[in-house]
Amino acid sequence: MTMKFEKAGRVRVAPDVVYEVAPGLGHFTDDVLFGEVWSRPQLSPRDRSLVTVAVLVATGKAAQTGSHVRRALDNGVTAAELGEIFTHLAFYTGWPNAMSAVTETRKVFEERGVGLIADSEEAPIELPPEAEAARAARVAATVAPTAPTLAELTDRVLFGDLWRRPDLTARDRSLVTVAALIAIGQPEQLPFHANRAMDNGLTQDEASEMLAHVAFYAGWPRAVSAVPVLEKVYAGRTAQASAR
Amino acid sequence: MTMKFEKAGRVRVAPDVVYEVAPGLGHFTDDVLFGEVWSRPQLSPRDRSLVTVAVLVATGKAAQTGSHVRRALDNGVTAAELGEIFTHLAFYTGWPNAMSAVTETRKVFEERGVGLIADSEEAPIELPPEAEAARAARVAATVAPTAPTLAELTDRVLFGDLWRRPDLTARDRSLVTVAALIAIGQPEQLPFHANRAMDNGLTQDEASEMLAHVAFYAGWPRAVSAVPVLEKVYAGRTAQASAR
Amino acid sequence: MTMKFEKAGRVRVAPDVVYEVAPGLGHFTDDVLFGEVWSRPQLSPRDRSLVTVAVLVATGKAAQTGSHVRRALDNGVTAAELGEIFTHLAFYTGWPNAMSAVTETRKVFEERGVGLIADSEEAPIELPPEAEAARAARVAATVAPTAPTLAELTDRVLFGDLWRRPDLTARDRSLVTVAALIAIGQPEQLPFHANRAMDNGLTQDEASEMLAHVAFYAGWPRAVSAVPVLEKVYAGRTAQASAR
Repeated sequence: MTMKFEKAGRVRVAPDVVYEVAPGLGHFTDDVLFGEVWSRPQLSPRDRSLVTVAVLVATGKAAQTGSHVRRALDNGVTAAELGEIFTHLAFYTGWPNAMSAVTETRKVFEERGVGLIADSEEAPIELPPEAEAARAARVAATVAPTAPTLAELTDRVLFGDLWRRPDLTARDRSLVTVAALIAIGQPEQLPFHANRAMDNGLTQDEASEMLAHVAFYAGWPRAVSAVPVLEKVYAGRTAQASAR
Repeated sequence: MTMKFEKAGRVRVAPDVVYEVAPGLGHFTDDVLFGEVWSRPQLSPRDRSLVTVAVLVATGKAAQTGSHVRRALDNGVTAAELGEIFTHLAFYTGWPNAMSAVTETRKVFEERGVGLIADSEEAPIELPPEAEAARAARVAATVAPTAPTLAELTDRVLFGDLWRRPDLTARDRSLVTVAALIAIGQPEQLPFHANRAMDNGLTQDEASEMLAHVAFYAGWPRAVSAVPVLEKVYAGRTAQASAR
Repeated sequence: MTMKFEKAGRVRVAPDVVYEVAPGLGHFTDDVLFGEVWSRPQLSPRDRSLVTVAVLVATGKAAQTGSHVRRALDNGVTAAELGEIFTHLAFYTGWPNAMSAVTETRKVFEERGVGLIADSEEAPIELPPEAEAARAARVAATVAPTAPTLAELTDRVLFGDLWRRPDLTARDRSLVTVAALIAIGQPEQLPFHANRAMDNGLTQDEASEMLAHVAFYAGWPRAVSAVPVLEKVYAGRTAQASAR
């Protein structure tokens, strides 16, 4: 791509077409999103890539997936982790989104000479037994009576298989899950997964910074609507910690 | 497509690219989604196809529409019913989704030698007068004062024309409507339409099984968020039945 | 495109493929949506185009963007306004939607001989100081404690830069924001933006008529769910006016 709209000392990411049709969008893309947000130290470039890819998959943005898969690889996300993110998000945002992401990513993998991805041979992730028992009890009480098949699959497949796969760490699974839930505007499951994310090692500062990042890729309203939910989660954890 | 990742005794649906990029997704697609869920007897293959197509249209997944239109035809959904599902979902999930579905489906119809679809010549569906009067009264009370045009179109076009078209049964219209509402995460209209679906012949067991099916195509969060809504609908119907 | 399904005295917009696959959809497109809704005088064709483009961008319908960009230009929306709508909606519905809209629109601009869009040289829009102070105070109280980066960007970039850009009037910014919020099913921010829209000159009759228009492009459920929100906004403004 040619760079007609170059400006000294500025990251230049927006393609010419953006400046030609929507110069304001070029300005905000290069001066704010890439000139500022992506390089804020409060969230690592690798995490920003995990979050961005999760949002793109969750909202079905196949057209932007390729370029952000490239960026993710550059930022240290491995090809195997990307594949597992799509697997994980198939469950959290639907099969079609994952399938389209796979198709777009295959092109990048070919271009980069990435070979076939194999299942990890590490041991499965062990879920903390107490938390896992509480989770299962909640599903048994709230989901099983109305939707027995969904409850059974949740226990056996989602938490009995997917979340134990060693191909992506528990912390990264949590991060992409939380980003996806915010992006699709589904606050009901956010308290559970935000708490789980912090149990899995995500800090409150990272979670807060992630909100600002998600705002750019899923829109301000989705991020702003998640604020009171995270606020309560933080308060709950503070209360819990001080009760100890 | 070649089948490099064959495994004895297993349904094999996921294309090679899925195994190459996201082997976990291949595993869950073939071992769980198609190896298990699609063949569960609690919901017929035809109903599963109706639900899947409805979710794909509702969430705008044009890339996956063609293959599931083929599967729907194989599972006994007629071409005319498919066309009418798109017509129905234009109203419930927006014109653009329906237009894209039509474009993708035209290719499959050509490939299968399906000719032009004509309007059904059956008599219009008669809506139960009492329920229809209650519905109209609710629109007059809650929608008309704030949004008169929307209320007028709801009465005259949506329920006065669309829902009476004989090109799709009332029960199937209800099924695709409910699946679409769950998939787009819009719970407000779900109680009305879940009740209407059961009045139109959908059983509670089918509705519950549908939730698990929708989970795969629209993501777990959408399905889980619909559980408490369905729970209340079931409880309301039980209370009503025992009051008789 | 050929016009096999011509009918005397009717606007004919739906392409043949719609009649071939889903004749009902052809009927509703030509007899209701374009034969009736688009020409209702309660909302100008230019406003209907603003609303339609906003819904298409907000819901990521790239396939339909080109034809409605053409219609918008025909209805008096300028090319520069279109570019700025994409810039605006990048913030409200996410960068990927805006980027895809830009790509589709570039093709139409080339076809129409539209040259490069330049930033407006008008003075920035002045936001009413009292309302702006109230807004900032609300962000400081409700967003900043939990999500400081999001709060800072909201003040400095969203309201300190975007909303002051003279490339689109405050009233049109409000109209596309409200249409987008309804289309994505995000009611939490709707009261603030519906009030702002009316402060910026949108009438209640226009807002109500817009709901019916949005119903066709984002689906009935999104529009119906916005009704009680608008109802409260109208009531609040009436109470406020009579208290003066």
